[in-house]
Amino acid sequence: MTATSPDPLSDPVFALHEGGKLEVRSTAALRDAADLSLAYTPGVARVCTAIARDPALTARYTWTSRLVAVVTDGTAVLGLGDIGPRAALPVMEGKACLFRVFGGVDAVPVVLDTTDVDEIVETVVRIAPSFGGINLEDISAPRCFEIEDRLRDRLDIPVFHDDQHGTAIVVLAALRNAARLTGRALGDLRVVVSGAGAAGVACARILMAAGIGDLALADSRGIVHAGRTDLTPVKADLAATTNRAGLTGGLVDALVGADVFLGVSAGQVPEEAVARMAPKAIVFALANPDPEVDPVVAHKYAAVVATGRSDYPNQINNVLAFPGVFAGAFEARATTVTERMKLAAADALAAVVADELMADRIVPSPFDSRVAPAVAAAVAATAREDGVARA
Amino acid sequence: MTATSPDPLSDPVFALHEGGKLEVRSTAALRDAADLSLAYTPGVARVCTAIARDPALTARYTWTSRLVAVVTDGTAVLGLGDIGPRAALPVMEGKACLFRVFGGVDAVPVVLDTTDVDEIVETVVRIAPSFGGINLEDISAPRCFEIEDRLRDRLDIPVFHDDQHGTAIVVLAALRNAARLTGRALGDLRVVVSGAGAAGVACARILMAAGIGDLALADSRGIVHAGRTDLTPVKADLAATTNRAGLTGGLVDALVGADVFLGVSAGQVPEEAVARMAPKAIVFALANPDPEVDPVVAHKYAAVVATGRSDYPNQINNVLAFPGVFAGAFEARATTVTERMKLAAADALAAVVADELMADRIVPSPFDSRVAPAVAAAVAATAREDGVARA
Repeated sequence: MTATSPDPLSDPVFALHEGGKLEVRSTAALRDAADLSLAYTPGVARVCTAIARDPALTARYTWTSRLVAVVTDGTAVLGLGDIGPRAALPVMEGKACLFRVFGGVDAVPVVLDTTDVDEIVETVVRIAPSFGGINLEDISAPRCFEIEDRLRDRLDIPVFHDDQHGTAIVVLAALRNAARLTGRALGDLRVVVSGAGAAGVACARILMAAGIGDLALADSRGIVHAGRTDLTPVKADLAATTNRAGLTGGLVDALVGADVFLGVSAGQVPEEAVARMAPKAIVFALANPDPEVDPVVAHKYAAVVATGRSDYPNQINNVLAFPGVFAGAFEARATTVTERMKLAAADALAAVVADELMADRIVPSPFDSRVAPAVAAAVAATAREDGVARA
Repeated sequence: MTATSPDPLSDPVFALHEGGKLEVRSTAALRDAADLSLAYTPGVARVCTAIARDPALTARYTWTSRLVAVVTDGTAVLGLGDIGPRAALPVMEGKACLFRVFGGVDAVPVVLDTTDVDEIVETVVRIAPSFGGINLEDISAPRCFEIEDRLRDRLDIPVFHDDQHGTAIVVLAALRNAARLTGRALGDLRVVVSGAGAAGVACARILMAAGIGDLALADSRGIVHAGRTDLTPVKADLAATTNRAGLTGGLVDALVGADVFLGVSAGQVPEEAVARMAPKAIVFALANPDPEVDPVVAHKYAAVVATGRSDYPNQINNVLAFPGVFAGAFEARATTVTERMKLAAADALAAVVADELMADRIVPSPFDSRVAPAVAAAVAATAREDGVARA
């Protein structure tokens, strides 16, 4: 059986997905007329009236204060590409399961029957009072950047494109620990990022914000530099702020002497290029299911290796970030997720394994129960410092 | 303490609403990496791929097959009027609780930050792939009629405005039993409906479809008849199909000799008008919290009395209908809710208490566990008869 020839009878994945993976429960008992008169009419009218007078009470007396919408248009789902909103649903349900199990956060998938940027923005703005936060998911670049920017402008609740920032937070945490393990500061490192989609752009931005030494980004046409005339606005911005060394050419050129390779693309990197990296190289080859550099090959040259796969050590998995980010934002009733909140999340995540650091343990396991509370606490504290907290 | 001066410290309603009334749960276990690889990546990709090839599998492998969106713009919430989407949330959460507890159906509130008909329709169409059915709620008339009509045209899932059809189904069931109890057929009865909003219009329509003898509708300006020039399109349609007796004038005029008074407004009916109704009169005074006719007064003249209140017998409560309607529609995977499905729901609801009929027991209690299964079975069977079932 291959990934594209499911046999529901023999494949446990299909058995598990029968009927979906989520359910909604009432936390109010409804055993008799007295219960009904409290949770529903006539009693509920008093809560409605109180909120109508003071909308700030919405967070206190409704579930929105702990509810995330997992929003997608189905255009960039896993490695499957533009499969549409319905086919994206199993991933969004899975994401909602992860929110619940790892973050204690409620989440509901909202899959959109449009790929138009204006329509997506308007739709999310109109349904936003139903939720306390918006997790954008699997929306293709470069549309994802504009959609997130516009929603952040329009809404006073956290808006977080996980493919960007979830990945970026975990990558920064892992790199911080890899640098420490190999005796260097982030400012000493030159990084090459392969892939300039959602994850590549966000990783580049957070690494620059964290004070990385230098960073060059490569897309399918080579190194992103100010001399290129084929750049989208987002890449043109990055050309101006990254690549201080002024590198041109291709990915392989950029890797000569580089300290860090970060792969968030699908392309393969030849072994010779990995061999030409600096001593104590760090290789994060995150493409799934096939890492840009085979981990066995990477280990021949690199001091630290990470992948996106659960069957190798050092899995760079977004679930290490997003449940705690939203839990922390909700705890502080944050109106947004600031850059400092993301940096704090990465620091907190790195700190979880600080005392047990090894080359095969630069990030915690997704099942490490210390992760989400640590991330949440850091995010909430930073929200308060940044003046974006309402609680 | 009054309804508009809540004291959260002493009011159990506020204590119960702290943090909201709903939660989302994962039905998939996520204890270890093996679980993750089934419910999320990489396994989930196989389900996504299967749905992308055959969208009909969405119902089988996602929760949408049992998920209702409870959609409102907050313009006609309970008796509170246009209080907006946020203040409407406690009612919508309560509705979702009722769906779960009484119908075994999952439901999520979607409150909209727009009151524009076009925008509401477009928004619901765009989010529709996230759900298996749309329950419209507390949207003011006459906008609710156009919104429902347009959504029914655009979507291939059940769209059901509960303020209209839920009320209409329960009223028809109650009237069927009241007629039987007083030895008459529906065709023998002349009905006067006070109120031509969502509930009044839908009740008029279902009673005409069920073969009522004659029916006159009164709005705040008097009896709806073909000679009036101030009618909305919906009322003009009703003027053409109701009031075969050609009544003009006011509500009080219409009640002379009438067999049934159905109040779905807020106005009060003078005792003298009730006194002039026909013998064995039936009075359904459903306004909340103040029935159009005081039940004590009504009992002086009427053989059967019903209200919308839980503290009197014969409560006409929508919860007798909507959980079973959606459960049945989902069981049959119906593409719509037909008029015959609503009539079948009313018949099934009436039949639940057929063997125990009394003047104080023309409808079951909301807590009668026979109700939702009986309604659901009738709705599903009729969906199949009507050729709108996919299962």
